[in-house]
Amino acid sequence: MAQTYVTELTPKSADLPRWYTEVIQKAELADYWLIHGFQVLRPYGYALWENMQALLDARFKATGHRNVYFPLLLPESLLRKEAEHVAGFAPQVAWVTAAGAEELPERLAIRPTSEAIFGTMYAKWVQSWRDLPLLLNQWCSVVRWEKATRFFLRTTEFLWQEGHTAHRTAEEAQAETMQMLEIYRDFVERDLAVPVIPGQKSESEKFAGAEATYTIEALMPDGQALQSATSHFLGQNFARAFDITFQDLDGQRKHVWTTSWGLSTRIVGAVIMTHGDDSGLIFPPRVAPIQVIIIPIPGKTADEQGVDEAVEAARRQLAARFRVEVDRSEKTPGWKFNEWELRGVPVRVEIGPRDVRSRQAVVVRRDTREKRAVPLDGLADAVGETLEALGRDLFERARSFRDSRISRVATLAELQQALRERPGFVLAHWCGSPACEAAVKEQTGATIRCIPFGEPEEEGRCLVDGQPSRRRALFARAY
Amino acid sequence: MAQTYVTELTPKSADLPRWYTEVIQKAELADYWLIHGFQVLRPYGYALWENMQALLDARFKATGHRNVYFPLLLPESLLRKEAEHVAGFAPQVAWVTAAGAEELPERLAIRPTSEAIFGTMYAKWVQSWRDLPLLLNQWCSVVRWEKATRFFLRTTEFLWQEGHTAHRTAEEAQAETMQMLEIYRDFVERDLAVPVIPGQKSESEKFAGAEATYTIEALMPDGQALQSATSHFLGQNFARAFDITFQDLDGQRKHVWTTSWGLSTRIVGAVIMTHGDDSGLIFPPRVAPIQVIIIPIPGKTADEQGVDEAVEAARRQLAARFRVEVDRSEKTPGWKFNEWELRGVPVRVEIGPRDVRSRQAVVVRRDTREKRAVPLDGLADAVGETLEALGRDLFERARSFRDSRISRVATLAELQQALRERPGFVLAHWCGSPACEAAVKEQTGATIRCIPFGEPEEEGRCLVDGQPSRRRALFARAY
Repeated sequence: MAQTYVTELTPKSADLPRWYTEVIQKAELADYWLIHGFQVLRPYGYALWENMQALLDARFKATGHRNVYFPLLLPESLLRKEAEHVAGFAPQVAWVTAAGAEELPERLAIRPTSEAIFGTMYAKWVQSWRDLPLLLNQWCSVVRWEKATRFFLRTTEFLWQEGHTAHRTAEEAQAETMQMLEIYRDFVERDLAVPVIPGQKSESEKFAGAEATYTIEALMPDGQALQSATSHFLGQNFARAFDITFQDLDGQRKHVWTTSWGLSTRIVGAVIMTHGDDSGLIFPPRVAPIQVIIIPIPGKTADEQGVDEAVEAARRQLAARFRVEVDRSEKTPGWKFNEWELRGVPVRVEIGPRDVRSRQAVVVRRDTREKRAVPLDGLADAVGETLEALGRDLFERARSFRDSRISRVATLAELQQALRERPGFVLAHWCGSPACEAAVKEQTGATIRCIPFGEPEEEGRCLVDGQPSRRRALFARAY
Repeated sequence: MAQTYVTELTPKSADLPRWYTEVIQKAELADYWLIHGFQVLRPYGYALWENMQALLDARFKATGHRNVYFPLLLPESLLRKEAEHVAGFAPQVAWVTAAGAEELPERLAIRPTSEAIFGTMYAKWVQSWRDLPLLLNQWCSVVRWEKATRFFLRTTEFLWQEGHTAHRTAEEAQAETMQMLEIYRDFVERDLAVPVIPGQKSESEKFAGAEATYTIEALMPDGQALQSATSHFLGQNFARAFDITFQDLDGQRKHVWTTSWGLSTRIVGAVIMTHGDDSGLIFPPRVAPIQVIIIPIPGKTADEQGVDEAVEAARRQLAARFRVEVDRSEKTPGWKFNEWELRGVPVRVEIGPRDVRSRQAVVVRRDTREKRAVPLDGLADAVGETLEALGRDLFERARSFRDSRISRVATLAELQQALRERPGFVLAHWCGSPACEAAVKEQTGATIRCIPFGEPEEEGRCLVDGQPSRRRALFARAY
């Protein structure tokens, strides 16, 4: 590997899109595949996803959800059962038309999402109110053909989880929808240190086939929004399309109420862009594939033995509580510092001959590069505190940036000015008409990210047509 | 649910194939999908696979392997790069020919296995001997179009893991191949309690594109063998086809040596058939989705309160060490016993008013139905011992059955007789010729499962043509 490895990285502050693409490849998170729009998740990138999965999966199981695996392929006729759903997804579907040497009698879709698949099985399994609620989740990959693609943010195949639940009443389904949105918010803010704004999608932005879609929206450093997860209240649309009925307590046959909700590897893109700096990635401690990297600092030959022993003792002490590795390669310490900074390891521990003599180690934070010498005996506690502090500070830094990029405007002209001068979220009154929403999009490129929950009701006038409005919508250009 | 739920189960002893299909559906492990050959993995069945994944994944990571996710689709031209490989898989490939409304310029295969995909990326990543060994593994689904399918044993889409490694020398790659086979043997025998015979596949039975394929072979109760996992030494075949080269220590550019190895959801079928009985499933404790089911036994009303408390205390005590659930439904205890026996939970704990008075619980083994009363204070230890003993006994029972079904014969006629009178494994000398192997298959339906490692060298004569042989092959009819 060349010594220019790190210096070649385009600074994030100079060119975010280029930095983004470079850092992903240099840090070996992902690589391109032969087919346009597909990516290869390398060990370091996949480990990040595995850590995310574990934290999210524990939340799903704690709220009574169980994992399943449903088929990759569905017949075209099935996808067509829910009219809005197929209209939304058909343009992006990959079609299987042959198997071996034989043409198939009906085209099969690679799942772009699995509402139709779960709906079909729920119709078979659900008979009585006793079978409800049915709370299932699946970790899998889905395929949606894309023209303009970017690592993690938009790929033709992506990994995700999709929850699919069926309930006895609308209220229960609605409560489930909101519970899952709150789980996503908690996960993304607490474990990924990415602040988000929760809210409801407008009619034109909601999921194909849903009654209502809820979202959490993050803000990237370039002022563009990134939809981080969605939770859908599907009403009885899929229940009717797939004939999912049950005998209720009152003896009547009724349609169930369903929900679906998903979070994908797209969130990895949000983590990379939100926290990284000119030197490379900075991973939030709870999901970092390596939380602590130990770098032995070579001294005069006589000292080496002591360093090796101290490094091994430190590794053992840390391994009990953290994901830790030692870089024993023959590169220079400075080169190693750069490399592990590029790869976003939140805490570096340096141990050299002088440290061994003073029975200490140097603990360095990735984000601030703050160094402190700590006694070897208390290393694990010191590292634990540093990781905690770093995670908190990543979140606070991202939040204060995000908050500094929220404008409140009254007119379309003001919205255009805000997007130009301080790209970010813009809160503005909107009358609810799709025409006004479309006008904003056409003239500014901004869409309604959501009607945020946090905004109080107030009297106002739509930024486009001046009609009365009771709530502000959150506008932004978006990934 | 009808009270006839369990009594409807066809006895395993009467009709194994029918019992197998019924028990999978009644225990809610899996269900059929609309497309022939596909299955739906329900929560109880998927939890079993998740437990297997965790145990196997820990072994992979402990031996230095890292997980990745590689693309689902590969261009047809790529699959064609290794001649034997494409010949082996092309007849079973599902072809994607269109995306949205557009025809694709080249057909894309849904991966039937990923040697060609990993090979392509390895060619890009491997430059120097320093990049080796490259030890990657992937958990995913693959698709191979099948005509005759059965739950778990043969499905068009199945879940598996596929390891792909690249090495500097043939010796290292060979050692890796054998290490992974041993990991499979250890996992299947220790965690799944299924005894296996490890050995090498014959030329005609080896993986398409491999130099050598190694296997572990289990024996099902009907005397048919089941290939449980395979590990392939690929030599330099894929390195040449995909041009994977590195600069060696001596400065020369050389091809790497590769391996691949996999275990699939097929193994679930082996576990079901090996351990189940006329009452249903029996799951080996280490992978059982539920290890302990607690059944409260109702008494006179005055007693109920004490039972509820004791049950909750027992649940809490057990939950710290085991996967435990309480069945508080309104079904009768007898009905619950049947249901949880059908579902294969290895240990049942009964707590009724009399037990509460004597501060005890009744612990019942699923396999022997042996009951013993144990003090509530020591319940977790007693359950732990029972689970251990049950796991050991499952293995021993399966091994003694398997051993009772190994015949040694000298001629084709004797082999036919053995298969008729005592269906199972047959050890016979074989000269190594594909023609003799084919003759056995044609006349008996038995194939060479492997050349077992355990068989000593000895002088012998081929069972077909009488040519000299130094080792016995293991013949059987197979799933």
